[in-house]
Amino acid sequence: MNRMRLFTPGPTSVPEEVLLEMARPVFHHRTQEYRALFANCNQMLQKVFQTANPVLTIAGSGTAAYEAAMINTIPAGGKVLALSNGKFAERWVTIAQRNKYDVTVLKAEYGCAISPSQVADALGKGTYDAVTLCHSETSTCTVLDLRAIAAHVRRTGAILIVDGITSVGAIPVKPDEWGVDILVTGSQKALMLPPGLSFLSLSEKARQKVQTVGQPNLYLSLSHYLKSLADNDVPWTPAVTLVRGLRISLSLILQEGLENVWKRTAALARATRAAAAAMGLKVFSSSPVDSVTGIRYPDGLDDKAFRGALREQFNIHLAAGQGTMQGKIFRISHMGYVDAFDTLGAISAMEIVMRRQGYKFNFGAGVAAAHQELADPAVEVAPSAKKT
Amino acid sequence: MNRMRLFTPGPTSVPEEVLLEMARPVFHHRTQEYRALFANCNQMLQKVFQTANPVLTIAGSGTAAYEAAMINTIPAGGKVLALSNGKFAERWVTIAQRNKYDVTVLKAEYGCAISPSQVADALGKGTYDAVTLCHSETSTCTVLDLRAIAAHVRRTGAILIVDGITSVGAIPVKPDEWGVDILVTGSQKALMLPPGLSFLSLSEKARQKVQTVGQPNLYLSLSHYLKSLADNDVPWTPAVTLVRGLRISLSLILQEGLENVWKRTAALARATRAAAAAMGLKVFSSSPVDSVTGIRYPDGLDDKAFRGALREQFNIHLAAGQGTMQGKIFRISHMGYVDAFDTLGAISAMEIVMRRQGYKFNFGAGVAAAHQELADPAVEVAPSAKKT
Repeated sequence: MNRMRLFTPGPTSVPEEVLLEMARPVFHHRTQEYRALFANCNQMLQKVFQTANPVLTIAGSGTAAYEAAMINTIPAGGKVLALSNGKFAERWVTIAQRNKYDVTVLKAEYGCAISPSQVADALGKGTYDAVTLCHSETSTCTVLDLRAIAAHVRRTGAILIVDGITSVGAIPVKPDEWGVDILVTGSQKALMLPPGLSFLSLSEKARQKVQTVGQPNLYLSLSHYLKSLADNDVPWTPAVTLVRGLRISLSLILQEGLENVWKRTAALARATRAAAAAMGLKVFSSSPVDSVTGIRYPDGLDDKAFRGALREQFNIHLAAGQGTMQGKIFRISHMGYVDAFDTLGAISAMEIVMRRQGYKFNFGAGVAAAHQELADPAVEVAPSAKKT
Repeated sequence: MNRMRLFTPGPTSVPEEVLLEMARPVFHHRTQEYRALFANCNQMLQKVFQTANPVLTIAGSGTAAYEAAMINTIPAGGKVLALSNGKFAERWVTIAQRNKYDVTVLKAEYGCAISPSQVADALGKGTYDAVTLCHSETSTCTVLDLRAIAAHVRRTGAILIVDGITSVGAIPVKPDEWGVDILVTGSQKALMLPPGLSFLSLSEKARQKVQTVGQPNLYLSLSHYLKSLADNDVPWTPAVTLVRGLRISLSLILQEGLENVWKRTAALARATRAAAAAMGLKVFSSSPVDSVTGIRYPDGLDDKAFRGALREQFNIHLAAGQGTMQGKIFRISHMGYVDAFDTLGAISAMEIVMRRQGYKFNFGAGVAAAHQELADPAVEVAPSAKKT
């Protein structure tokens, strides 16, 4: 009888209002009705993206949007400085290499950030067409100082392409103010939708590149998306159901207030880190992001047994580590439709399972620490989705 | 109070069971639960595709899947024979040209088929890496004799890439028996789902090409999809909600029986053509397809006024002509979740609006003719979706 609680860093829980909206009969997309819906979404997307620039919507995963960002703005053979400190950043390196760009990888160990000064040094040693990075590296639960990195990049001619898949709508990111040319996100994270849509904002500089960089792909041709967007339309058949859900989920975010969402997300992360510390557990990252927390397993706890028991006994879903981090860490999301008491419940369940599986700690300390953090009035901003 | 009746040739109506399934809470896709769901879908997809070959699922529109088919199996600079007799075939020509293939276009007027002997002649004049075509050209409501064309193509070394977006699940298409290497479809047509997924089956020959033809795109890299499919998995985040809906919609098709679905679709098309003839209207195509019927406007009827009145007064949605056919034809779909009485109702509404808008004809003749056709016992196979 336990309600399913998804703490995976995508997909995240989808509010009931969004699910019900998506269950309404499908209508045709080449209509005034669709354009009005999409216009409404586009205005709200700009607010959530904190940008005055156009935000494009693609039917596809975040990988589709990030690949579109790269191939449409980096000329053939272009030089790319690719920051890499986790599995997702590595995917963007792979795309750059497959596309035969001249790629310089600036690498950090899993769980570590790449500092703004490291980026400044690298930029000083070459001229780049683009810089690629993950703002919030979901695999290592690590945040980069995007504001300071962007300040370095904007002094060069490079396009800054940012994977904001677990940062947009979760933690502060201000592309226009900071100088991010392209900001990418996906539907199934802080935007509280099922997977299937991805989004990217494009600065004036990025839009100019789109017009000059020829690339063969049609489905991911951003010049086609930009042209259609002028009429609040899309070049290819859109995923109408998900766009309908998007209207509701963006409304919920704006109703709560984007800054309140950021505060709530940060508070849940603080509470989780406090609980981990009180339980004698170590946070994996040396630069932890607020959208998802990675926690190292103590000796003797088995990933499959631990997450399996949480899932089977309590219907609480945590994420494993990826790649070489598998078995060494677990991850718990703070994005989207999740509140203080869901998080407190997850910590309670973690304590129960860890004790059963033989980990020695001060039972109750995690819950107590999280409870103290969550008693902060700032956290009492519950997601507006739950108020209705 | 009129129920919305979608006769657009995509999106088509989505059965209530599918909508409700998609409203269920989202779960994570890197789980045994997802792989079991996807395995079930994959088995049913093979039945609906009438193939023993793997059928891949992409989060994206039909354009994404068709582009994936081309770029993954045609080598750089490869020779393409592109059959073109409508707006969708023209899109595949555009993709071939953007990708700098050596493209020979075999063209027919809108509303006309390209004959097997024309294809045989063209194949005799050159050696091609691939032949591209639309089995059912949705824009002109025209079918090609795919079986006979495939018989010519399979004698050559060319890969046959077929747009079956409005043929799979609607009219007979047997890729393994006929020799179609790649068959592409989308979710929002005969598969009775919202837009957002596309599918393609790959013959052994096509799969070999995928392994040898290097292409830079990662999102559309079919070698990645094939590798994941071996574990009933996907390389990038799937559109889970739509895949859940897919399980239900494929079950509904197989419960009714694929051949019964074909028969029902054909009967609705025959009834519509009979009604048009009885009303003094002309079918646009000289080779009409059974999935969607295009009808020429008689003199004096205005497209916007006609379809607008059907929409505003009766909540019945027909499609306009595309490109130069706009204003000259309207289109009515027979795919998916639509039955004899929906179609009869649409013909009744068309009669009422046409008479009001000044078209002179034997009022009632369309309904009577359709009713005669639909009284055939073969049509009394109602879509099983409606039985539950």
